[in-house]
Amino acid sequence: MQHYFSERPLTVGEEVPLSAEIKQHWLRVLRATIGTQAEFVDDQQQVFVGELVDEQQGIIKIVAATTQNVELPVAVTIACGLPKSGKAELIVQKATELGAQTIIFVPTDWSVAKWSQKATKKIARLQKIARSAAEQSHRNVIPEVRYYENLTALQTVAADADQRVIAYEEAAKQGETSRLVQLGTQLHPGDRVIALFGPEGGLRLEEVQDLQATGFQVVGLGPRILRTESAPLYFLSAISVLSELK
Amino acid sequence: MQHYFSERPLTVGEEVPLSAEIKQHWLRVLRATIGTQAEFVDDQQQVFVGELVDEQQGIIKIVAATTQNVELPVAVTIACGLPKSGKAELIVQKATELGAQTIIFVPTDWSVAKWSQKATKKIARLQKIARSAAEQSHRNVIPEVRYYENLTALQTVAADADQRVIAYEEAAKQGETSRLVQLGTQLHPGDRVIALFGPEGGLRLEEVQDLQATGFQVVGLGPRILRTESAPLYFLSAISVLSELK
Repeated sequence: MQHYFSERPLTVGEEVPLSAEIKQHWLRVLRATIGTQAEFVDDQQQVFVGELVDEQQGIIKIVAATTQNVELPVAVTIACGLPKSGKAELIVQKATELGAQTIIFVPTDWSVAKWSQKATKKIARLQKIARSAAEQSHRNVIPEVRYYENLTALQTVAADADQRVIAYEEAAKQGETSRLVQLGTQLHPGDRVIALFGPEGGLRLEEVQDLQATGFQVVGLGPRILRTESAPLYFLSAISVLSELK
Repeated sequence: MQHYFSERPLTVGEEVPLSAEIKQHWLRVLRATIGTQAEFVDDQQQVFVGELVDEQQGIIKIVAATTQNVELPVAVTIACGLPKSGKAELIVQKATELGAQTIIFVPTDWSVAKWSQKATKKIARLQKIARSAAEQSHRNVIPEVRYYENLTALQTVAADADQRVIAYEEAAKQGETSRLVQLGTQLHPGDRVIALFGPEGGLRLEEVQDLQATGFQVVGLGPRILRTESAPLYFLSAISVLSELK
């Protein structure tokens, strides 16, 4: 069944007009006809089943509520040093599938990419990728994609998190293998976790030390060197294994 | 430090000519000069440090042996129903970074892609991607990439494995959340695990039942629907968390 975000209140029995975007995709591309059903997520992250009742006007009738909830029990924010071109798109798509709540891009000292002029446009494009990946993976939430000017801005936001971690390549090289599992055992449902990943060139030691001074903890992600776009996917998979599987 | 596969025996003190490929990359692209060091993996998966002693001829001297071993304690084979174009490349690159030993592509009933005519050329290209990803992630082994004609051929090879699993979307929908962690606790160093992932359209129920009859076990990978190229990455990350971290 297709899965769309309606982002307005929904109630069983109600007839609701579809947005232009959903009409285009569901009616034009997928050729839904009267009686076809799809899932629609309301503004409270509740999932409903809607049935097409008017093809011309694009109107659905909400026929059932579901209890579907596929969200990670903890709210994970992935923060990435600006990666090279194409990688931000991959990170947003995959991090959305793997359950991230927020995805932040931030320039760090060794970021080769510069976004400042085009950040707004880039974020708008990445937000669309997040929506489409959230539909595809039947999420209850579309992750929010944001751009921060620098690590200081990130630290301010991170102050509210319950756990702050840095995936630091040197930690892996030094054989750090216990903190991620420890973190997993310390998490409670509803906790907020923020994890920072360096760009291709990694993070500078001084950046890491600065972050450590504000409560960030360095974690290793296994002994192999992961690319900048792979590390967040490993981290999210690990959080899923440690918090959702038993 | 750069990391290359020499695939011949190496001994400390010995002088060794570089292959044309390594010369091209290390000397031409990265402009290594006399005295520059890199890691070289021999045919026994041992890592050595080599120092450039002759730029003209491309000759290194092996100056030290290391004890570096970044391989997963278990040998994981990832088998994928033929995915759509571009995704095989991503799977090979990321599965190599995440520690796979073997990566198999196999047509399944609902594979849209057909490789039969071009399989040899495709596999050669994917093998190059595996080599380059293995260098980048400082692996001791280059994963082998293979094409199998059908699931029957896969089952024959899988008979030798210690654990056989299928990542089946319906398992996730039915809330299967325990088998992957169970699998993790049952693994011993040196065990061989084979995991099959469906193509975009998934696996047919009959295919799954056939595989179950030969000892494959269905596992869920968390509640979100993962794309065909994301599921193997989740699985490999999970195996790393369950077997390498503590």
